[in-house]
Amino acid sequence: MAGNSFGNLFKLSTFGESHGAGVGGVIDGCLPGVELDLEAIQNELNRRKPGQSAIVTQRKEPDEVRFFSGIFEGKTTGTPIGFVIENTNQKSKDYSHIKDSYRPSHADYVYDQKYGFRDYRGGGRSSARETASRVVAGAIAKQMLPEIKFHAFVSAVGEISLEKPLHEIDFSETEKNIVRCPDAETAAKMEERIKQIRKEGDTIGGVVTCVIKNVPVGLGEPAFDKLHAELGKAMLSINAVKGFEYGSGFEGAKMKGSEHNDLFNQDKTTKTNFSGGIQGGISNGMDIYFKVAFKPVATIMQNQETIDKDGNLVEMQGKGRHDPCVVPRAVPIVEAMAAMVVADYFLINKQYQ
Amino acid sequence: MAGNSFGNLFKLSTFGESHGAGVGGVIDGCLPGVELDLEAIQNELNRRKPGQSAIVTQRKEPDEVRFFSGIFEGKTTGTPIGFVIENTNQKSKDYSHIKDSYRPSHADYVYDQKYGFRDYRGGGRSSARETASRVVAGAIAKQMLPEIKFHAFVSAVGEISLEKPLHEIDFSETEKNIVRCPDAETAAKMEERIKQIRKEGDTIGGVVTCVIKNVPVGLGEPAFDKLHAELGKAMLSINAVKGFEYGSGFEGAKMKGSEHNDLFNQDKTTKTNFSGGIQGGISNGMDIYFKVAFKPVATIMQNQETIDKDGNLVEMQGKGRHDPCVVPRAVPIVEAMAAMVVADYFLINKQYQ
Amino acid sequence: MAGNSFGNLFKLSTFGESHGAGVGGVIDGCLPGVELDLEAIQNELNRRKPGQSAIVTQRKEPDEVRFFSGIFEGKTTGTPIGFVIENTNQKSKDYSHIKDSYRPSHADYVYDQKYGFRDYRGGGRSSARETASRVVAGAIAKQMLPEIKFHAFVSAVGEISLEKPLHEIDFSETEKNIVRCPDAETAAKMEERIKQIRKEGDTIGGVVTCVIKNVPVGLGEPAFDKLHAELGKAMLSINAVKGFEYGSGFEGAKMKGSEHNDLFNQDKTTKTNFSGGIQGGISNGMDIYFKVAFKPVATIMQNQETIDKDGNLVEMQGKGRHDPCVVPRAVPIVEAMAAMVVADYFLINKQYQ
Amino acid sequence: MAGNSFGNLFKLSTFGESHGAGVGGVIDGCLPGVELDLEAIQNELNRRKPGQSAIVTQRKEPDEVRFFSGIFEGKTTGTPIGFVIENTNQKSKDYSHIKDSYRPSHADYVYDQKYGFRDYRGGGRSSARETASRVVAGAIAKQMLPEIKFHAFVSAVGEISLEKPLHEIDFSETEKNIVRCPDAETAAKMEERIKQIRKEGDTIGGVVTCVIKNVPVGLGEPAFDKLHAELGKAMLSINAVKGFEYGSGFEGAKMKGSEHNDLFNQDKTTKTNFSGGIQGGISNGMDIYFKVAFKPVATIMQNQETIDKDGNLVEMQGKGRHDPCVVPRAVPIVEAMAAMVVADYFLINKQYQ
Repeated sequence: MAGNSFGNLFKLSTFGESHGAGVGGVIDGCLPGVELDLEAIQNELNRRKPGQSAIVTQRKEPDEVRFFSGIFEGKTTGTPIGFVIENTNQKSKDYSHIKDSYRPSHADYVYDQKYGFRDYRGGGRSSARETASRVVAGAIAKQMLPEIKFHAFVSAVGEISLEKPLHEIDFSETEKNIVRCPDAETAAKMEERIKQIRKEGDTIGGVVTCVIKNVPVGLGEPAFDKLHAELGKAMLSINAVKGFEYGSGFEGAKMKGSEHNDLFNQDKTTKTNFSGGIQGGISNGMDIYFKVAFKPVATIMQNQETIDKDGNLVEMQGKGRHDPCVVPRAVPIVEAMAAMVVADYFLINKQYQ
Repeated sequence: MAGNSFGNLFKLSTFGESHGAGVGGVIDGCLPGVELDLEAIQNELNRRKPGQSAIVTQRKEPDEVRFFSGIFEGKTTGTPIGFVIENTNQKSKDYSHIKDSYRPSHADYVYDQKYGFRDYRGGGRSSARETASRVVAGAIAKQMLPEIKFHAFVSAVGEISLEKPLHEIDFSETEKNIVRCPDAETAAKMEERIKQIRKEGDTIGGVVTCVIKNVPVGLGEPAFDKLHAELGKAMLSINAVKGFEYGSGFEGAKMKGSEHNDLFNQDKTTKTNFSGGIQGGISNGMDIYFKVAFKPVATIMQNQETIDKDGNLVEMQGKGRHDPCVVPRAVPIVEAMAAMVVADYFLINKQYQ
Repeated sequence: MAGNSFGNLFKLSTFGESHGAGVGGVIDGCLPGVELDLEAIQNELNRRKPGQSAIVTQRKEPDEVRFFSGIFEGKTTGTPIGFVIENTNQKSKDYSHIKDSYRPSHADYVYDQKYGFRDYRGGGRSSARETASRVVAGAIAKQMLPEIKFHAFVSAVGEISLEKPLHEIDFSETEKNIVRCPDAETAAKMEERIKQIRKEGDTIGGVVTCVIKNVPVGLGEPAFDKLHAELGKAMLSINAVKGFEYGSGFEGAKMKGSEHNDLFNQDKTTKTNFSGGIQGGISNGMDIYFKVAFKPVATIMQNQETIDKDGNLVEMQGKGRHDPCVVPRAVPIVEAMAAMVVADYFLINKQYQ
Repeated sequence: MAGNSFGNLFKLSTFGESHGAGVGGVIDGCLPGVELDLEAIQNELNRRKPGQSAIVTQRKEPDEVRFFSGIFEGKTTGTPIGFVIENTNQKSKDYSHIKDSYRPSHADYVYDQKYGFRDYRGGGRSSARETASRVVAGAIAKQMLPEIKFHAFVSAVGEISLEKPLHEIDFSETEKNIVRCPDAETAAKMEERIKQIRKEGDTIGGVVTCVIKNVPVGLGEPAFDKLHAELGKAMLSINAVKGFEYGSGFEGAKMKGSEHNDLFNQDKTTKTNFSGGIQGGISNGMDIYFKVAFKPVATIMQNQETIDKDGNLVEMQGKGRHDPCVVPRAVPIVEAMAAMVVADYFLINKQYQ
């Protein structure tokens, strides 16, 4: 119940702190016989890793994954896949100043209250470094489902939004810029904004949108485990996420039924897709799409007043190497979580076939 | 895995279709020794039940719950609580017209695809009637946690929003009008809007906001089972929900870290609460608040073109008794799901004490 | 976690005390489209019910099951099946003498310690009445798996054992006598023994053996969820069970590998079956067989000295209507649990197909 | 669902094959603040490791565990503990002869059927090497519960049994001989028997008994998750186990209620303990004890006829390094599984306190 596992038939259990020996996990339930492209897995990790561009944290980590099991002669065996990504660039000394103080809007205070003490180096377990393990599992889930395509991209940085309708977006553009926004012009503005924010020693929030194509009809369960409910949980479990909406989302709350209903074509596709590819919690074969809101990173390079364990006021000086905006690195994480959810429901749904 | 259970230590499993003999469930894990106020449970059901006011469906159901177990001499025993709410007003004949056709934006098509056939009377299992069972379990969860207060209310109907800041809202106003908006003036406008929509044979979406007060520090688990991730899943599992945000939500994605960080007071409360009472997935003792977006009900009283099983075009005539806007009746459901999530994490967290 | 659910993809959650309004449950995950033979379900309940013969408790209960959901036009829909069996013959007054005392070898003392108090009428939740719900679910599991046959029978009552090898047993004999031992001569001895024990106001233990035929190859998971591990848990969860062994069992511990190894035939069956149809936790297509040991019922009609809540010595007088030997009524329960385990693993295994 | 996790609040997920890069796991839910004695953990591994004495397999493995997370300044943090034990002595070439053949009474055939192919080196995932990870988790569970004592020992090797009653056994004797039987004389006979069996190129079964002392009253859940049901599942999930009994076990099935009932003392202990410390599935504070039957190892050093994938008869020559009798090495595994079960129920039960 300690909450470090995700999924039912395709399940990931993760471990690791930002400044321990490494992070990793166990992937349980991958189908046997999947020919693994290890380079593709590493490539996903590279999309998430620090130091990859001028607008992300400059912490240097190779983030190389080592597999211990579940793969034989290049193929998955159906047995659990254990893996470790060693931490190589921990610089724990950077964190002595927060040992006894609580950084604003971090998990420091609640960890101390819940567990009695905490690994104060970096964020410990609350660090987004944990998501590296998710990216590994997501990359394998993608390879287990080669027909299904997961396209996440940055759709907003602060007030700057990509205004294109989804059907006009060329997903092959996403990786062509360091922001991961599939529109060169908007991406340039976003990059500019992030650089300026960093100069100010500040951070800024953003939005990641994800489109999933070629999902078979029938994935999802009717009551509590609706497909979008599990996707929502998956996304909300990513560090810094504050909101999730799919299909028409919050805009849908303003609409009328006569506008919002997706009328059928004779081939059982729908003319519109306000449903976001999911009806009654079950995929209907149309594109699934959703948005994920990320808050600005709490660690800023400005001085802030805060308190220590005993409630004394202390001045906290921003230092360390941090992301001015997390969304460029969050793109592969969103895809990974989406792939794990779809893989899980894909396996669950096979009982009906 | 069929998805009809929710929770871990405080767990609800539900059953029932809209037009079967009844709905009900099993509540497993309620603490022993809770003196149950059965009238309060029925009162929660009354807040959800059809026919309660002029702006909801006129289907008449007494929605009386009968308990079979887990209660002895007025107190919970710690053993599972089984209950049934009989369906008394099914009018199945109303639904013969949809037996072979797929209503737009309903689950008809996906159920047929997933299960091979469906109980076509009403929505069958996809009907929101299932949420009556959730309300029973939520009412018991509330009574298990008497210190913690759950205040949901309607904050938007279509384009009409309640603009008051949360701290100015008087929750005792919520039940004073049939919309369940805790501001008489806004409520009147919303009621007007819903009545007009119904006259048009149409439906409209809306938003429910929920504030949870007096949550102890420490509820929530760090990685996948973050408190807000489970709250999000809970809300997204309610029929017609399209989005969930907590704390600063989607607005937070536009903010800077220097604005968004919640600075500490010396008593360890925070000066602002953009975090929404949750940091790193764990409650920090401040108010938890979140918003839930509901789409417009798919069943409208206007004619729509749709298809039958074989892909033939058919005209579907809207009939039956349906809600023009679900949010007034969704308020107790949102509270119920929130109470179940908090009850579950409350029990999980006791291991650390 | 409160332990009232069993199974993963085919899952039963039960509720109910011996002297409450009724027992029942929710069956979640039955495949859709199974044509249910309701009479066959009731027949399984009749095999378990009290008052069925001269050698079981004379408590009279019709044990009629009422289904509320999950069945439409005679077929399962794939949605949860809710059901209730009302208690009609509770005679709670019989139990006032045990309100404050602890019956030896019952759960009275541990319930009081765990929950702070208990429903002292009969065994409350610890009563074997709970197994009626299991029989309903097992009967449905059997119908979901029509090819697979579950044959349980009484193989020992006290010192009297059925000595026939399994392949000589004619399972059609089992229901021809009230003991449910598929050998008329041994059954007569067992019946005699039980009648004598009852005259003495005493009770006696026994053994149920179960053979499962036509299990497909491949059911079971390698590490913790081995097929026989889950079967063992299922059997040990039945009231009064003290032991479980499968295949060669405890006798196998005395054997040499050269004797115990099951050599293959060319058609991939094995010449012997010490493995009990399971190798490495996974079914190999041979018959699965196992034994379940039941202790003597703790309620005897003799006076016993015991203590009350405050530790005072009290004399407890045996009364009420109880089974002198549980194994005849345990036969359908063993089959039901076996059927649920196999149904669950059958569904789990479909992901590989 | 793939079955590589065990436990609920104290949970272990394992990975690893006998001839891959390593085995390991994730321990999720250990209480924070436990000062870990790493040497004690390694010592438990040493009790299980190959090559430790003249009567076990001579495969040499250092079995050194490396921890990656969840430990800070010598104490558990409450976050998941990831660990790896590298395989150093794989000798995969030993196994080429079984690549296409099915060893009798091994999992070769069922793995091929279930997964389509298998890692044929050693037993792959079906190898008992997986239990090294369990020993690590069990050692940590023991340290989380310092008051509770787990005493497993060898009580039978083939026909040779330890006949002493439990209360006369001095558990400090167990580790004084290589068989792990706490009676020097019987141990000597067992050792002799194992050596003789090895000379014959054969293997032999045995029994491990376990006594758990100082278990608090109240652990266990009433219906499906009875404490002994979970202990049974835990033991049956260990490689080569064929049977489990607790308390009076199979002998109890021959007894009368008047003999079997455990009468209370005024201090709420019982005069006898046929219940085995568990009543109604819940611990009553008396010693818990149970027996676990192990079959003889399937790999023997004699030639056997078997079949290959295509059903052709082939002669299989026994080779490799294997245990003539597994019970000496199984002792720490039984303790580890018992400790994990008790740790899990200990945490689950804290909700009632």
